Amino acid sequence: MFVAEGVKLLDCALDAHAPVESVYVAADALGSPGIRESVERALTAGARAFELGPGVLERVALTVTPQPVLAVVRTPEATLDDLADADLVVVCVDVRDPGNAGALIRSADASGAGGVVCCDGSVDPFNPKTVRASAGSVLHVPVVTGVGTDEALSWLRSRGFVLRGAVSEGGTAHTDVDWSVRSALVLGNEATGLSDQMRQQLDELVTVHMAGHAESLNVAIAGAVLFFEALRQRSTLGGVKVVSKSGLPEVGAPRLRERAANE
Amino acid sequence: MFVAEGVKLLDCALDAHAPVESVYVAADALGSPGIRESVERALTAGARAFELGPGVLERVALTVTPQPVLAVVRTPEATLDDLADADLVVVCVDVRDPGNAGALIRSADASGAGGVVCCDGSVDPFNPKTVRASAGSVLHVPVVTGVGTDEALSWLRSRGFVLRGAVSEGGTAHTDVDWSVRSALVLGNEATGLSDQMRQQLDELVTVHMAGHAESLNVAIAGAVLFFEALRQRSTLGGVKVVSKSGLPEVGAPRLRERAANE
Repeated sequence: MFVAEGVKLLDCALDAHAPVESVYVAADALGSPGIRESVERALTAGARAFELGPGVLERVALTVTPQPVLAVVRTPEATLDDLADADLVVVCVDVRDPGNAGALIRSADASGAGGVVCCDGSVDPFNPKTVRASAGSVLHVPVVTGVGTDEALSWLRSRGFVLRGAVSEGGTAHTDVDWSVRSALVLGNEATGLSDQMRQQLDELVTVHMAGHAESLNVAIAGAVLFFEALRQRSTLGGVKVVSKSGLPEVGAPRLRERAANE
Repeated sequence: MFVAEGVKLLDCALDAHAPVESVYVAADALGSPGIRESVERALTAGARAFELGPGVLERVALTVTPQPVLAVVRTPEATLDDLADADLVVVCVDVRDPGNAGALIRSADASGAGGVVCCDGSVDPFNPKTVRASAGSVLHVPVVTGVGTDEALSWLRSRGFVLRGAVSEGGTAHTDVDWSVRSALVLGNEATGLSDQMRQQLDELVTVHMAGHAESLNVAIAGAVLFFEALRQRSTLGGVKVVSKSGLPEVGAPRLRERAANE
C-alpha cells in the first residue's frame, strides 16, 4: 500500500482505476463539493472512507500544510515483463531524492517512456513525497522495484534494448544519439553519477551538452531533456526500430498521443 | 545583498568574480581544508570573514542541516540592456516557487540563454532558496528584476525579439517552433499558467506535446525542455538569425561552448 496525499492524487488514482483501499478526510472538508464528489467516487469504487477529528490529519500528513484528504492505495506491482513493449525504459540507479525520482517518473510518463525501474539505493517510488512529485504518474507507467541493477540490465539487453547511461561529461551529445532504437537509459546518483563499473556494462554514454556557464544539470532536468529528445526523434520518424534477435530492425507502431504539457 | 549558503556557492561566487562582502563560518569548519581554502580566497578577494560560535549557524541558516559556510554577496544588478545580445531570453511571470525559479535560471544558463527577467509576482531570484536551486547560475546569467511585464515585453519587442509564451495546451509543438529567430519565452504561474490578457500580447504560443498519460509538466521541467530544444536548433543551424529592423535576418555568431551536463 502507499499513501496519496490530496484530492488531486485521489482523483488521479480513481481515473487510473487503481485500487483505493481507504480515504481519510479532514473534519470540515466534506463541505467542499470537489472533495465530497471525489470521496463519493472512491466509495463507489469500493474504498472505505473515514472522517477524521480536528487536528488528526495535521499529525499524520507529511506536508506542512496538509491537503484535507489522504488516500491509501494498493501499490501497482509491475515486473520487468511489463516493460517488454517499451520504446524507452528509464533505469534509476541510486537516485536518492524523492523530488528527483518523482519528477523523473512524471517526465518519463509525459514523454511516452514505457516504464521506470528503480534499483540499488534509489528512493522508494511509492514514498508519499515521490508519489506527490510524480503528480500521479506512478499510477500511469509501470514502475518496477525490488530488482537489482544487474538483473534489470541483463533482462533489458536480452530483450534487445540498447543500454545507455547519462553522464555529465564525455558522452555522445544527446542530440546525436539515435533514439529511434529501443533504449534503456540509466540515470545515476545526484552527487556521484554512474560508477565506472556501471559505465562498463553499458553500450553508450550520453551527455547533455551545454552552452552556458552552469557546471551541471539536476538529474531530473537532464532526464527530462533526454526523454523529450528521444520522443522528438521517435515522433519525427513515426516509430521505433525494434532490434530483433536476428539483428534486423523491425519498425514498431508509433504510440504517440497528442497531449499538451507544461503546468 | 543576498545570502549564498554553502561552500560550493561561495566558490561559485568567487569564480564568477562576484563581490563577496562577508563570509560566516561555523566554529569547527575551518579545520576542513576545502572550506579553509575557500575562505582564504574570499579574504584575498576583499571579503571579511567571521567565525561563528557553536549553534549560531544553525539558527540563521535556512536549511535543515546547514552547510558550515554562509556568504553575503552583493546582488548583481542587471538591466534590460544586458539582454541586448541574447539569442533567447526567459521571462518568468508570476513563477512563485523558489525551487522552480532557481531551476529555470540554472537550465537557462546551461542552455546558453542570454538572460532571465523575473516580473510580476515571481519569487525574488536572490532569495536564498532560489540561489541554491540555481546552483549559482544567478551569478552567471543576467537576472533582471524590478521591471513590469509590460515594460519587459515592449523592450524585447523593440529589440526584435519574437515573443513566445509556454502554454499547457493548444500552442505550436515546441519542436515545430523556429528557435533560430531570437526569442523571448514567457513562462507563467505554476497553477494558472499565462493569463488570457498575457497570451494576447504574444506572437506565438508554444506547447510541449506529450505522449503518455501525464496531465502536465512542472514549469521548471517544461522550461528546460524548451530551452534545450532552442539550443539544439541554434546548434544545428550554427547561430541565430537576428531579425533586424529592416526585416532582413542577420546571422549572429554562434556562442556555443562544449560543456557537459547532468549532475
